[in-house]
Amino acid sequence: MFTTRITPRVSETDGARHINNTVVPVWLEAGRKEVFRLLSPDLAFDNWHVALVNTNVDYLAQIFWQHDVEVRTWVERVGTKSFTLYEEIWQRESLCVRATVTYVYFDYRAGQSLPVPDDVRAQLLAHQRNSG
Amino acid sequence: MFTTRITPRVSETDGARHINNTVVPVWLEAGRKEVFRLLSPDLAFDNWHVALVNTNVDYLAQIFWQHDVEVRTWVERVGTKSFTLYEEIWQRESLCVRATVTYVYFDYRAGQSLPVPDDVRAQLLAHQRNSG
Amino acid sequence: MFTTRITPRVSETDGARHINNTVVPVWLEAGRKEVFRLLSPDLAFDNWHVALVNTNVDYLAQIFWQHDVEVRTWVERVGTKSFTLYEEIWQRESLCVRATVTYVYFDYRAGQSLPVPDDVRAQLLAHQRNSG
Amino acid sequence: MFTTRITPRVSETDGARHINNTVVPVWLEAGRKEVFRLLSPDLAFDNWHVALVNTNVDYLAQIFWQHDVEVRTWVERVGTKSFTLYEEIWQRESLCVRATVTYVYFDYRAGQSLPVPDDVRAQLLAHQRNSG
Repeated sequence: MFTTRITPRVSETDGARHINNTVVPVWLEAGRKEVFRLLSPDLAFDNWHVALVNTNVDYLAQIFWQHDVEVRTWVERVGTKSFTLYEEIWQRESLCVRATVTYVYFDYRAGQSLPVPDDVRAQLLAHQRNSG
Repeated sequence: MFTTRITPRVSETDGARHINNTVVPVWLEAGRKEVFRLLSPDLAFDNWHVALVNTNVDYLAQIFWQHDVEVRTWVERVGTKSFTLYEEIWQRESLCVRATVTYVYFDYRAGQSLPVPDDVRAQLLAHQRNSG
Repeated sequence: MFTTRITPRVSETDGARHINNTVVPVWLEAGRKEVFRLLSPDLAFDNWHVALVNTNVDYLAQIFWQHDVEVRTWVERVGTKSFTLYEEIWQRESLCVRATVTYVYFDYRAGQSLPVPDDVRAQLLAHQRNSG
Repeated sequence: MFTTRITPRVSETDGARHINNTVVPVWLEAGRKEVFRLLSPDLAFDNWHVALVNTNVDYLAQIFWQHDVEVRTWVERVGTKSFTLYEEIWQRESLCVRATVTYVYFDYRAGQSLPVPDDVRAQLLAHQRNSG
């Protein structure tokens, strides 16, 4: 599991006085920085290998800007050309968001998906949820 | 169907030189402004009635900042206390994003969901997809 | 003058129930799309020529999300290696924001500023404020 | 001085492969959370007291998403109804951004500025730059 602590910002609230729902995908993506590093160790965009294909987000409770949140990120499944992450956002002991996110391993120059390389697969699987 | 034309911004691109995936929920929400007006005719936040419970987004093709996009928004289903929208984003004749979004009708002061009022239900159903 | 009409989004409001101040630079940048096109006709990032060096923004009145805004963009001055734009944001007959923005003409590969090419200079000057 | 550590996000980059300039005001505002707490101890928006009137930002060096940044925030000056902050953003020993930000003390219900209360003034002055 990867854990990312985030301090909410005024600019992430909305007129309903909670964190706007469109901020949640931003925080979930922020929680994947170490996953991106597994795929592109220098985090360079000319060496970028992932393309998002699906996100499914359950909004379980409102999030407020007063308190820090924690994003928790696991690998859920690694397929031939794709992999799925499972993520949660917690604030003050409450589970506020639950999400799955699926990427394909992608060659941006060729514009096509490729099999996940074996070494990347092994590293992703080391962070799999419920793997015990 | 509600149609919203959007001109992509530099700030909505990312290092992979396409529109960042976290911008898609922002545009989808922008496509719902007329739906929000059905629920709160003055668009005032002290009279806000919706809380998001789920989004499911398929990313079908990359979006680039050079060309305008169009968000298309339909009502998919109206339940007792919730309703689901179906949305698409198109760029240059290509379907790039397909999404469903579910809201509950919500009383922010009481902090609880309520039945969708009959007049709101009727207005939502007038925009239902495949209603013919 | 370049004119850009913008429909405010829920995600651009904040808990004070107006448009968050950090959205203003986003809208001002959106108002420069045609300026960017003068500098990079295909709007391609591997052919990008501007680097921002200063923004000075006066916030004159609150902006609300209910009504569209208009961004107005002029060229203020073209120097040897830099140029300055002047921009305004209007909502319902009120001037809400006044800003100046200075860019240098930049070679991202070499990492250094360059003189503004003559043809670009001529095009920029055609949009100068108070040029009459 | 208030110090805020920020981990850059993919969504904060742009097609030029650096942090987009519109993210800088977002980070600068994030650096003011403890200043906001001086003004509204519970950080509640129905008890919000500041309205931004000017920002002046010098962009001195590009910021990249690979490394954390640090925002440093000082009080520069406290006037009768307004106060000015001075902020810097650093990445890997480089000063990348220098900014001043001016707020008025504001009553959102009455829609007018008010004198900065004495206790708030005293707390702000305790964080003044070069006060020694």
